[in-house]
Amino acid sequence: MVKYVYFFGNGKAEGDGSDKNLLGGKGAGLAEMTNLGIPVPPGFTITTEACIAYQKNKTYPEGMWEQTLEALKKLEETTKKKFGSNENPLLVSVRSGARVSMPGMMDTILNLGLNDETVKGLATSSNNERFAYDSYRRFIQMFSNVVLGVEHSKFEKLISEVKKGKGYSLDTDLTAEDWKGLVEKFKALVLNETGKPFPQDVMEQLKLAINAVFDSWDNQRAKTYRKINKIPDDWGTAVNVVAMVFGNMGNDSGTGVAFTRNPSTGEKEFFGEFLINAQGEDVVAGIRTPEPIARLKDEMPGVFAQLEEVYKKLESHYKDMQDIEFTVEKGVLYMLQTRSGKRTARAAVKIAYDMYKEGLIDKKTAVLRVAPEQVDQLLHPMIDPKEKYTSIAKGLPASPGAAVGRVVFTADDAESWAAKGEKVILVRDETSPEDIGGMHAAEGILTATGGMTSHAAVVARGMGKCCIVGCGAIHIDEEEKVFTVGNITVKEGDYITINGSTGEVILGKVKLVEPELSGEFAEILSWADEFRKLGVRTNSDTPHDSKVAREFGAEGIGLCRTEHMFFEGDRIDAVREMILANTEEERRKALAKVKPYQKEDFKGIFKAMDGFPVTIRLLDPPLHEFIPHTDEDIQKVANASGIPFDVLKKKRDELHEFNPMLGHRGCRLGITFPEIYEMQVYAIMEAACEVAKEGVKVYPEIMIPLVGHYKELEMLREMTVRVADEVMKQYGITLKYLVGTMIELPRAALTADEIAQYAEFFSFGTNDLTQTTLGLSRDDSGKFLPFYVEKGIYKEDPFVSLDVNGVGQLVEMGVTKGRKTRPDLKTGICGEHGGDPASIFFCHKVGLNYVSCSPYRVPVARLAAAHAALKQQ
Amino acid sequence: MVKYVYFFGNGKAEGDGSDKNLLGGKGAGLAEMTNLGIPVPPGFTITTEACIAYQKNKTYPEGMWEQTLEALKKLEETTKKKFGSNENPLLVSVRSGARVSMPGMMDTILNLGLNDETVKGLATSSNNERFAYDSYRRFIQMFSNVVLGVEHSKFEKLISEVKKGKGYSLDTDLTAEDWKGLVEKFKALVLNETGKPFPQDVMEQLKLAINAVFDSWDNQRAKTYRKINKIPDDWGTAVNVVAMVFGNMGNDSGTGVAFTRNPSTGEKEFFGEFLINAQGEDVVAGIRTPEPIARLKDEMPGVFAQLEEVYKKLESHYKDMQDIEFTVEKGVLYMLQTRSGKRTARAAVKIAYDMYKEGLIDKKTAVLRVAPEQVDQLLHPMIDPKEKYTSIAKGLPASPGAAVGRVVFTADDAESWAAKGEKVILVRDETSPEDIGGMHAAEGILTATGGMTSHAAVVARGMGKCCIVGCGAIHIDEEEKVFTVGNITVKEGDYITINGSTGEVILGKVKLVEPELSGEFAEILSWADEFRKLGVRTNSDTPHDSKVAREFGAEGIGLCRTEHMFFEGDRIDAVREMILANTEEERRKALAKVKPYQKEDFKGIFKAMDGFPVTIRLLDPPLHEFIPHTDEDIQKVANASGIPFDVLKKKRDELHEFNPMLGHRGCRLGITFPEIYEMQVYAIMEAACEVAKEGVKVYPEIMIPLVGHYKELEMLREMTVRVADEVMKQYGITLKYLVGTMIELPRAALTADEIAQYAEFFSFGTNDLTQTTLGLSRDDSGKFLPFYVEKGIYKEDPFVSLDVNGVGQLVEMGVTKGRKTRPDLKTGICGEHGGDPASIFFCHKVGLNYVSCSPYRVPVARLAAAHAALKQQ
Repeated sequence: MVKYVYFFGNGKAEGDGSDKNLLGGKGAGLAEMTNLGIPVPPGFTITTEACIAYQKNKTYPEGMWEQTLEALKKLEETTKKKFGSNENPLLVSVRSGARVSMPGMMDTILNLGLNDETVKGLATSSNNERFAYDSYRRFIQMFSNVVLGVEHSKFEKLISEVKKGKGYSLDTDLTAEDWKGLVEKFKALVLNETGKPFPQDVMEQLKLAINAVFDSWDNQRAKTYRKINKIPDDWGTAVNVVAMVFGNMGNDSGTGVAFTRNPSTGEKEFFGEFLINAQGEDVVAGIRTPEPIARLKDEMPGVFAQLEEVYKKLESHYKDMQDIEFTVEKGVLYMLQTRSGKRTARAAVKIAYDMYKEGLIDKKTAVLRVAPEQVDQLLHPMIDPKEKYTSIAKGLPASPGAAVGRVVFTADDAESWAAKGEKVILVRDETSPEDIGGMHAAEGILTATGGMTSHAAVVARGMGKCCIVGCGAIHIDEEEKVFTVGNITVKEGDYITINGSTGEVILGKVKLVEPELSGEFAEILSWADEFRKLGVRTNSDTPHDSKVAREFGAEGIGLCRTEHMFFEGDRIDAVREMILANTEEERRKALAKVKPYQKEDFKGIFKAMDGFPVTIRLLDPPLHEFIPHTDEDIQKVANASGIPFDVLKKKRDELHEFNPMLGHRGCRLGITFPEIYEMQVYAIMEAACEVAKEGVKVYPEIMIPLVGHYKELEMLREMTVRVADEVMKQYGITLKYLVGTMIELPRAALTADEIAQYAEFFSFGTNDLTQTTLGLSRDDSGKFLPFYVEKGIYKEDPFVSLDVNGVGQLVEMGVTKGRKTRPDLKTGICGEHGGDPASIFFCHKVGLNYVSCSPYRVPVARLAAAHAALKQQ
Repeated sequence: MVKYVYFFGNGKAEGDGSDKNLLGGKGAGLAEMTNLGIPVPPGFTITTEACIAYQKNKTYPEGMWEQTLEALKKLEETTKKKFGSNENPLLVSVRSGARVSMPGMMDTILNLGLNDETVKGLATSSNNERFAYDSYRRFIQMFSNVVLGVEHSKFEKLISEVKKGKGYSLDTDLTAEDWKGLVEKFKALVLNETGKPFPQDVMEQLKLAINAVFDSWDNQRAKTYRKINKIPDDWGTAVNVVAMVFGNMGNDSGTGVAFTRNPSTGEKEFFGEFLINAQGEDVVAGIRTPEPIARLKDEMPGVFAQLEEVYKKLESHYKDMQDIEFTVEKGVLYMLQTRSGKRTARAAVKIAYDMYKEGLIDKKTAVLRVAPEQVDQLLHPMIDPKEKYTSIAKGLPASPGAAVGRVVFTADDAESWAAKGEKVILVRDETSPEDIGGMHAAEGILTATGGMTSHAAVVARGMGKCCIVGCGAIHIDEEEKVFTVGNITVKEGDYITINGSTGEVILGKVKLVEPELSGEFAEILSWADEFRKLGVRTNSDTPHDSKVAREFGAEGIGLCRTEHMFFEGDRIDAVREMILANTEEERRKALAKVKPYQKEDFKGIFKAMDGFPVTIRLLDPPLHEFIPHTDEDIQKVANASGIPFDVLKKKRDELHEFNPMLGHRGCRLGITFPEIYEMQVYAIMEAACEVAKEGVKVYPEIMIPLVGHYKELEMLREMTVRVADEVMKQYGITLKYLVGTMIELPRAALTADEIAQYAEFFSFGTNDLTQTTLGLSRDDSGKFLPFYVEKGIYKEDPFVSLDVNGVGQLVEMGVTKGRKTRPDLKTGICGEHGGDPASIFFCHKVGLNYVSCSPYRVPVARLAAAHAALKQQ
């Protein structure tokens, strides 16, 4: 016979804290507390297995009901009360409890066991008629709502009518007689609504309540919650049937919730609130304002002392901050629940650090206590949690943090306003590489279109700058320099605040707070470094970003994009000259002008990364990205540069592509215009040699993008090695440098064995690999991808979290095949996924050597890499 | 000791015809003919293995030279002449000969063994001093050119000077003394050019000649040829050293080449030409005009009779049409070469058919004798082979056949001119779906841009219409209605001829001939059907194309694109109304107008394919393809439809995509606008039920495009089955129908096991799969892909011939994973590759059930499928 029911009471439980999967979190906690000798009202837990069995054909599995009756009998013996008795009735609460907490998602029924007869017994035994009828009406209300489906508001309406008629203002004004009258009205309402009288048989009540809890596992709310939180559908919920204890039996009773440490700051202080003479739901409902837990010391010093003892016991037992619920019935303390408490990132860091220092947990545990997903909060300015505000629109939270500034609509305006000392928010339909300067100058960026990996999002994250994208509710009129949301109009120069962590757009200025990267956080990260196997590098294109990333713990650069450098200052003119060249000779002449800039950039980056490897990707985007697109912009460039309008326009048309993502870019440029890549390799190697002569330890890794066929790499590697050898000979110096490739096309992964012949490293460009593998343009997917995620087709935006089932197969294949050819092949990831904890976990699993991410994600990656290593152990 | 040298002579050879890999084609042929008792001058063959060994370090492998000397001794004994003798010198030819014929790619030296002394012996033994010195000067010329690298023209210049000085007009006017004098001048030239005297040592001559042949395997010409013809670099060439026989010893001598059947028509007639008193190279050089072989009967009846006997013997021995070379020396016939003769498609069919009927070959062999690549020639009008013309430009031969017509520059003009009975060629920069009507009306299409799978190319091939794309030399001025090529201007209305088989653009009208699908060809195809395992379906969107394809042997439709139907006639108005709709209700209203058209189309196609399955793909392209793109076109549509310009423009901007290939299309439309697919399924199933009631056997296969995640298919399959059941219930009929998907994204192939849960068939859309796997837009690749193919990065345009190493892996993975989930999964291919023989071979190998291709490629596919099956046996 399968055991479906586990009893606890009298200091002994059939299960314990390790039975979370079977008994649910709440049930396991109750059992564990019972075994610890902590005062818990007795009761029993019906297992999650019973729930799963019940789900199949909506009947109890064999033996479950019999075991329930047995447990109920034991409960009666323990409490010395009787279920359904007219004299000293046993009342129970029936609560759900899944493996993991799903707050508010499933149903709870209190005071079960009351009917027209037992209520009288309760009045007698408690010597409190008002309490008895108040409890009965609460039970009818709750049971009818949860089990019978009668709307809660209909009951509330009846209470209001009585209050109005009697001139009461508070529920506490109602007398025993008032509640008695209302109980009759409630029962009439139930009969009217359901066609049946309110069940008087306490056994039927219990059965219906158990069924309701079981069924609540599959209600729409719970399903949605599970989908969002990735909880499997087949876990099921346990049912906890517990003897009722009453916090509402007078001023020697009460109820409260508390945390063993401060969940907001992590400070080691008992933190929480309580209500005298109240039941648990009163705290939640907010009808009365609870008091801080410290005041309990004054009101019930004995209870408070006992509570302190319990929380210390619980913390030292669970070795984690606990979230507890308790009730005091006539001066006697009962614990109703204990579980690990939710906490802010700040608190998580502080608690983990303190508990390690207190000797409560080891380093590994301390590291595992800080969720990588959460710590991003600690790395950006935030809206002051004390501020109240309402948002006017919501977009995608593309890059976290918050920013306040005056609205501008063009990158040029952003730059000129910022130059005058104004803080600005750049608001655009979408951004393009030409906007880089303006994005840099702005405090934050807000776009109407684009997804989580649109240009604006990627660049902003790279800059660690707050950004909201795809905010479809705003309509921008660039000419009039206004945007509208519904009937709100925001003009150029108006202040707005944007919250890149939530996607909220707020009118006016909201106060921000600068978060600190505390010493404790830094220490926990250094512990994480002891455990992680994955290296953590950064994606950085400038000496400044490189320094920031290094301060955050980056161990090198995994992706330095050379094209961003092409836009800065005057150099764009030389780049355009190169693009407009009609012969190789003209092109070489223009490239010669670009080279000194590139060389200087590389020198700066090499110096910033002294001692660490720097992976530099040769030119990747199609050339048309460097030419203005609209006739107006062409005219502007024509005016400024003296290049005739027609020449620019013709080149634009010539370079136009239907699908630039799949066009003439990456190594295809290097193959058709070898002189471009050649110039870049000269610049890299000359820079490397020059800084090496200054004593900098430099490890250049030259990366060829968009390779699809090994012959592409073979040709370009030949050129790279030739140029590198020439430069090193010229400087009379020998450097260790690597030549490798991005794996960002499915074909590259499929033929990684061939490609590895010519590559010393692979860097998985999972942004583009996702685009090609899924056939999904990240710039265009905003029209349907959110809908896809909503419908659960993809659980997460595959540009945010790596699509392990699809793209992941190619990454794994690339690693395996590549290492088959070259066992010491260095492998890493440099897509946006390099900063996503779930993706980092995958990278660890398939054995990559490193991940690379935005500077501001480096701490997240360090922590996630440690989690991956520790969880795999 | 490895045997490197194989002797033949005196009716016996050490090797035979099966030794092609070792002796090369020529050597094996000479050995085989010798063994057959056919008169062949004696000689020996140095093996390809020796060549490969030599390539490694440019020295002969051990024993090769000793074996050569031995064979040379045997040759002296056989010919009763002596190499280097002053009295009766042995002269030899030294020729290359690889496994497969590489015409003109490698080097040949004749008359080797002559020097200042032996030439006197030759004069004596031949009793012909002029012949001897003519031979000597030929030898110096050839040897110096091939071995010593002296330019041929320098020798010719010396000859011209003598002729000019003496007032001769022909080479034959030169006397023995003239040649003697020239020999001295030639030797002086060699000394001057090379710094060394012309080698007089005959052994040195032989050694140098052998080296030159070996080295010729690696000259640039040969390398390029091998690359183009996919011949491995490590095959090597054999060297044939053969006793010279002379066709230039007077009027009882001569030389000729002949085919055992007519290589142009296939008629069973001895076909060729000969020259009296000439050496082989005179025939090739075209200095004298050869006479038809039939005249040999008059001139040398004995020799002709002997030749007839030889050719019959060779044909019955080789069981194939032979291409032979012979020389008559003083009335004695020598065969110098035999090999399978190249032939036109027409001849290939006729010869294979005849030989089967003659009992010479079996059916399998007959089928294998007709190359699938070639038969496409037989299916389109061609330029009359007798016509002489010069082309003004050359583009990519996108769709074979030829067309003559008057130039028009817009689809509208094409339609209106055609309506007036004019034959037109539509000339455009590129075509778009809106041009379909005009393309249909035109005789042929010429575009300035685009690649082999651009819109124009794909649609034209689908229509079986002649098309040239990517003809970059033409510059179109649509406004002025002219195009220019250099300084040639072609105006609207001018006649041009285009050859879609070669890519040539010709001014004016050139005569065309209509090829016939002869009874013999049809019969050979029916034999092919007996052997092939692959089904052959067609890609067709209209009843007309379906009928054509069926006549060509298609066994169903593998891809019926529903979107082409959206453009015809008035329906585009309803489609645009649907796209402009702002609510689902409006969209449904517009769709209701489209449905009757779709239904009628499907009925027509079902009827045309009575008894065969019809795979219908639901709407695939992004909606913006149905909206005009330029402001001018928008204005036109606005005027015609009454829809305001601004509304159209706004919708165009709203639907604009950066990478439409990776955008909101395929099943993504079906997911976000379910009503569109729903309408299509209603139309399909209603059409099917209605024709079924008329007695048509109908097997609809509903295909969901662009699936990347199984949940997409799960959702859309649910809808499809629901609608199908509803329709069948309504008509009171049960039809067998399938629901399946395109596999055209890498992710679909990677997760084919999941997708097969919901798919009864997979159709590999290898066009899109190639685009995504290689990250290559077929519309944009024209700027670099030709260069890639030229550089050998891809051996063939991957849109023309399936990239087996990359895309092929995904196809194979898709089949394997799909069948693991669903063993009876039907699999096919419907990309352009379905009509490409190499790709069909691959499809057979991985076990697909069918290929689907343009109607006009169906015969090619039938034949290729048979070849694949027979070659695998």
